[in-house]
Amino acid sequence: MAMEHPLIKDCWFREINDEHFPGQALMLKVVEILHWSKSEFQDILVFKSAEYGNVLVLDGIIQCSERDEFAYQEMISHIPLFSHKDPKRVLVIGGGDGGVIREVVKHDCVESATLVEIDNAVIELSKKYLKNMSTSLNHPKVKIELCDGFRYLKDAANSTDEDRYDVIITDSSDPDGPAEAFFQKEYFELLHSALKDDGIVIAQTSENIWLDINYLKNLMKTAKSVFTNTKYCYTMVPTYTSGQLGLVVCSKDENNELTSPSREITDREQNNLRYYNASIHSASFVLPTWADKVINQK
Amino acid sequence: MAMEHPLIKDCWFREINDEHFPGQALMLKVVEILHWSKSEFQDILVFKSAEYGNVLVLDGIIQCSERDEFAYQEMISHIPLFSHKDPKRVLVIGGGDGGVIREVVKHDCVESATLVEIDNAVIELSKKYLKNMSTSLNHPKVKIELCDGFRYLKDAANSTDEDRYDVIITDSSDPDGPAEAFFQKEYFELLHSALKDDGIVIAQTSENIWLDINYLKNLMKTAKSVFTNTKYCYTMVPTYTSGQLGLVVCSKDENNELTSPSREITDREQNNLRYYNASIHSASFVLPTWADKVINQK
Repeated sequence: MAMEHPLIKDCWFREINDEHFPGQALMLKVVEILHWSKSEFQDILVFKSAEYGNVLVLDGIIQCSERDEFAYQEMISHIPLFSHKDPKRVLVIGGGDGGVIREVVKHDCVESATLVEIDNAVIELSKKYLKNMSTSLNHPKVKIELCDGFRYLKDAANSTDEDRYDVIITDSSDPDGPAEAFFQKEYFELLHSALKDDGIVIAQTSENIWLDINYLKNLMKTAKSVFTNTKYCYTMVPTYTSGQLGLVVCSKDENNELTSPSREITDREQNNLRYYNASIHSASFVLPTWADKVINQK
Repeated sequence: MAMEHPLIKDCWFREINDEHFPGQALMLKVVEILHWSKSEFQDILVFKSAEYGNVLVLDGIIQCSERDEFAYQEMISHIPLFSHKDPKRVLVIGGGDGGVIREVVKHDCVESATLVEIDNAVIELSKKYLKNMSTSLNHPKVKIELCDGFRYLKDAANSTDEDRYDVIITDSSDPDGPAEAFFQKEYFELLHSALKDDGIVIAQTSENIWLDINYLKNLMKTAKSVFTNTKYCYTMVPTYTSGQLGLVVCSKDENNELTSPSREITDREQNNLRYYNASIHSASFVLPTWADKVINQK
């Protein structure tokens, strides 16, 4: 396949995006374009990179690379899952690539994991090009719902208590495309209603402290207006802008500190993890002074 | 001045470097080239960027930007300075931009800070274009020595005990140019000899866990062969490759844990710091599992 995506030039993918990352862009060397299409929902590009394995790009923004994806998937999954004493029912909104689901089913206590993805093309392309990420999409505990996450959540919010979730992970794409509604107050209210009384939710913010810290400040305010117990943490991913991505984690249980595991990580579990451990769980909540002041309103 | 540096194209600086950062590169939007020259020692570029203020580039590698430089300067300075109970004599090798010196003189206990820089052009250009970094180069406690850091250290290593240093900060450029010798065993031996009995040294590694972790593993081994008490930590800087930079810190005092401050940070001191605090000091030693295994040989 010839290299002809508008963001690829001289065999370099350039993540130029004036709105989201003004004045800066990551370049990744391209070996081969594996797929480029416009689905019903978004522009989907998959290329083989020289150093980071296969890379998935949605609407021009890098979603994951095979080499560093575990830094994101493990942190967004295990921070809420280990902060919860006994997560049984888990909902993942977005994340059709399967990376988060792969992490969720590593927890023996999890009885069911539902993946709600709007774009079936992402699932199919991940099965083809991101085999190590999509490996658990057929796991017996996993149910896939092909629909809009916001709508799915509206139904879940009206369900009976036993159908509510212990942990909800919002692994959405960025707030412009199909995921726009995932960053508003109404979304957090739906999350709140869809969670059990000691439930935990985590959402990727598409931002970090260097990029648009005021956006994060406002997002925290929005989340806190629904969940009193809301905290900011981050994971370090070299193919994301500034090398890090912010996560917002909220618990309905006000006594859950969230900043350390609530249950033991067994040796078997730890041996299955490449990034997450109890120490980095806690460290991921520690911010540089200036960012701490803004985000945590000190 | 026209934009004509080979790494600047279509008004973007592209940090393409096949040897150090194969397959990836950061792009920064250029507003104006402020300076480009080849000094006796290296290629020096200073440009005004769209989002990161003025940027200093040596031999094609970004050294600092005005917007995020404090993330580097504060961590490489205050980790060793607050790990030491009473640092009085401080040596900075490299760092002609003055950023580290600015942090060092924030400590009232410091009586003298010597800056050894090989390239006077860096000092002069910093005074002109990085005014907020070079602000303390004329501080009464500061002495500037224009010479090769390795040679200076050889003399210091033979000095009397009272002339030895409490803290030495190696703020060198990368290991190819004039700074090549700063990454060898002989260098750590000289550092050891130039330090007082409870002295601490920190060195920037030019690397991070995502880039060349085996290099870091070997560097740690080299440092440990001289200083039994050697630890790895890092700082998060968006204009450095992968968004983070590794630091190696060593103490002659085997009982100094190094992973937290050894003395109180006063309110006055903390109010002067934008990045460093006691919590991020400790968090900067926490690594993702896979990197922890390699670097700390678990």
